Amino acid sequence: MPDKVEFNRTPRTKETVPSNPGITSHTKRYEQVAAQIAGQIEQGALRPGQKVPSLQRIHKQFGVSLSTAIRAYSLMEKEGLLECRPQSGFYVTPRPPAPPQPAPKVHKASRVEMGSFNKGELFEIRAMVEKELLRPDSEVLHLGTIELNPDLLPLAALQKSTAAGPRRVGPKGYLYNWPPGDLSLRRQLARHYLDRGLSLSANDFLTTTGCTEGIQLCLDAVAKPGDLIAVESPSCVWSQVFIQRKGLKALEIPTLPHKGMDLDFLEKSLRRHKVKACLSIPSFHNPTGSLMPEANKRRLVEMLAARDIPLIENDINGDLSFGGAPAKPAKAFDKKGLVLLCSSFSKTLATGLRVGWVTPGKFYGEIKLNKILGTMSCNTFTESSVGHFMEQGLYRRFLAKARKFYAANLQAFLGALPRFFPRGTRVHRPQGGLTLWVEFPKGVDSFRLCREAMAEKILVLPGPFMSSQGKFKNCIRITYGYPWSERVEKALETVGRLAKEQLSGQK
Amino acid sequence: MPDKVEFNRTPRTKETVPSNPGITSHTKRYEQVAAQIAGQIEQGALRPGQKVPSLQRIHKQFGVSLSTAIRAYSLMEKEGLLECRPQSGFYVTPRPPAPPQPAPKVHKASRVEMGSFNKGELFEIRAMVEKELLRPDSEVLHLGTIELNPDLLPLAALQKSTAAGPRRVGPKGYLYNWPPGDLSLRRQLARHYLDRGLSLSANDFLTTTGCTEGIQLCLDAVAKPGDLIAVESPSCVWSQVFIQRKGLKALEIPTLPHKGMDLDFLEKSLRRHKVKACLSIPSFHNPTGSLMPEANKRRLVEMLAARDIPLIENDINGDLSFGGAPAKPAKAFDKKGLVLLCSSFSKTLATGLRVGWVTPGKFYGEIKLNKILGTMSCNTFTESSVGHFMEQGLYRRFLAKARKFYAANLQAFLGALPRFFPRGTRVHRPQGGLTLWVEFPKGVDSFRLCREAMAEKILVLPGPFMSSQGKFKNCIRITYGYPWSERVEKALETVGRLAKEQLSGQK
Repeated sequence: MPDKVEFNRTPRTKETVPSNPGITSHTKRYEQVAAQIAGQIEQGALRPGQKVPSLQRIHKQFGVSLSTAIRAYSLMEKEGLLECRPQSGFYVTPRPPAPPQPAPKVHKASRVEMGSFNKGELFEIRAMVEKELLRPDSEVLHLGTIELNPDLLPLAALQKSTAAGPRRVGPKGYLYNWPPGDLSLRRQLARHYLDRGLSLSANDFLTTTGCTEGIQLCLDAVAKPGDLIAVESPSCVWSQVFIQRKGLKALEIPTLPHKGMDLDFLEKSLRRHKVKACLSIPSFHNPTGSLMPEANKRRLVEMLAARDIPLIENDINGDLSFGGAPAKPAKAFDKKGLVLLCSSFSKTLATGLRVGWVTPGKFYGEIKLNKILGTMSCNTFTESSVGHFMEQGLYRRFLAKARKFYAANLQAFLGALPRFFPRGTRVHRPQGGLTLWVEFPKGVDSFRLCREAMAEKILVLPGPFMSSQGKFKNCIRITYGYPWSERVEKALETVGRLAKEQLSGQK
Repeated sequence: MPDKVEFNRTPRTKETVPSNPGITSHTKRYEQVAAQIAGQIEQGALRPGQKVPSLQRIHKQFGVSLSTAIRAYSLMEKEGLLECRPQSGFYVTPRPPAPPQPAPKVHKASRVEMGSFNKGELFEIRAMVEKELLRPDSEVLHLGTIELNPDLLPLAALQKSTAAGPRRVGPKGYLYNWPPGDLSLRRQLARHYLDRGLSLSANDFLTTTGCTEGIQLCLDAVAKPGDLIAVESPSCVWSQVFIQRKGLKALEIPTLPHKGMDLDFLEKSLRRHKVKACLSIPSFHNPTGSLMPEANKRRLVEMLAARDIPLIENDINGDLSFGGAPAKPAKAFDKKGLVLLCSSFSKTLATGLRVGWVTPGKFYGEIKLNKILGTMSCNTFTESSVGHFMEQGLYRRFLAKARKFYAANLQAFLGALPRFFPRGTRVHRPQGGLTLWVEFPKGVDSFRLCREAMAEKILVLPGPFMSSQGKFKNCIRITYGYPWSERVEKALETVGRLAKEQLSGQK
């Protein structure tokens, strides 16, 4: 087996890049302009670091108003494709050569299946991964589960807010903190989402023990066992776990690079199936890292609302945008109280805070009651501590630092993959979040890869974890929370070698 | 209607007091001696404050060894019936005249029914109670839900432990605190239970978000929807809620005064029904306050173990004993890992800590996994803070104070009830815990009483909340967490008046 197989760096042909996959009758003019210029960047006509045509030129070239040109560039800046240099103009965001993205596939009609998460090989691997995660003082590098950069933790400031909690809250800190939870935190959450283009009041939030409790409360409120839930394919492990634990069925909706859920496909599926709810990660999808464009978010919300179908928006990565502007949640387009946004601080600030929230919309009463019947109340001090931390502007400052770090770290990962991974590997280019979705050439068995990597003290997640139908056998999820290091580089090299060995063994 | 109806103070006749309701072939000789002397106290032959026969006399009179006599008196001391005055002897514990206890009933064969918690009048009242509980700044006196005496809260010490948490735990306080949870707390729990006659190691515990999460995790581990759970009748609201939410069926087992679950009845039921698990509160049962004698606990554990049936032991009141000695948990008799003890600090130290624990026994792996899939991890700081608080001996000191307070407060409540409640009312005399189970004469409708009391800003819980079959329509639960005050006295008077009005209206 050759040791150094060149990664496939041939530029993407027209066939593999859809001209405008997300453009439909719902798309606005400025979004069409943005999509065309994005296409030029994608195809290499505009290179990283290169200056893009001036607003004046766009105005003339596309025959659009100057304000439309400005909105197009603002959108692209938000999506991380352009950056604005003061008194100079807009430039293509510089990035190192990255592995090619997967080609969008022609998706067949949707198929409904009960999950396979508790069966056969997937179950065995799951048990192995779980065992590893709970091992204290493990020497395994957790390259597939989400780990935050420990150096980012604003320890001193958090400690100060935490330690001040008892005196700030007083005796009521030791009494039931009945839902909807600590008011000071909910006020800060409302303020925070305003920056992301979502206008809500403190009373629209209900706190939960992490995002996981929130999603489960939402599923309980909107669906009962046997009901059908539309969910991205692939989608995060927790989506699979919850759908299966609750006896629900998953309707897998394919995802498109840089678009998230394929809305045309969803629309067709809604006509064929009685979908009870949609569970989606529109902002920095896990595992692909895609940011669903605002126009698509609006279309998603409207499409579901027209059928009175609730949307559970998993927004846990929503703050981890790498572009210039924050990502507007789909909830911002909600007019009927049907969008239930769930999130927490576990993928940004710290995994162990267990401070999450839900915007229960029209399901407020039911979710509040179910929260009480489940874990009753949340921890007052922690909620109040995080509220205090936010109040001082420290969360906003922290986020700016975290976004910068993960965006740069991602580039290191993306730059390394072509060196190590087999030719023909395709990797989604995340617009935010913490996960990388790697599609190896058919023939790579991710279960075997996961087992063999574990033997070399590396944990990656096999693709079938991300599908209720056990799809994506040739895929793995990698995360880039760990700061780039020689150890991480070696681990990626090992994973690449193991994949190559599988492919060469089949020749 | 007369304003002052005398409470029924006629001494209990032989018919209403069973000679030895709990004595079976399993009962030891010293327990028989204790039961006989207890019977004399119960019937007024030995009065509160009176000296009981010397050990020598018991030795001769009953023809038992001196050590058996000592064990009998020790048991009665433990149960709060006797007190030992140094260099003087044993005396009947002084207490104000209390209302009579209910007569044990002849229980018919067990009947299995799906719960009625979500139907009809019970549902309406439940909604009213829930609404009231979540109202901020309510003026209603919560005389039916469990409230702790706020003056007992060791605020300064807790604040000190909480505030010191961040620095003591360091950065790992902000990371996932994977099950089984904080080691320092689990070590303290093991030490604590040693004082209660239960020998476990830190590794036998797994922390949970309160006792409620623990019980739900246990139910999930041992039963699936449709399975039959044996549970006391009456039993705490949460037992009903969890059994119904999980689609389980309840097999109601009657309770006996000062004995808890009727084990003869349980034994017969186990022969007739396929019981999947038993959910019980052996120590200071909610709502009756009964302490199941140690011999019965052993019998319960052995009876279930012989059939491989897990026992979920709700021990949340276990530390609130009013007798001389701590109550040994049923878990102490577990030889097969089939007893899953669940508890928390919510009914002792503070309701809002959300620090609970489970001893998952042979279900350890499954419960650990389900904890992760549910709320993932608990809050590190709070767990570590409580661990710190216990380590300094502060929890033990706090408990001594709390037990003394609630025991005295209970006497104030018991003394007042005969003055206000209608003739024929019977009240269980709690041996610990925080709840009083009041049986009004038939004819009192507790739903109506609950509604009318609420109109007068008093919340009591109607009996059918405590039964999955909606039994106990003439009963209410009262709690004595609030320190005795004129307001509490007035509230009891009002509740009594409302009950009397119902009875007189029917004449």
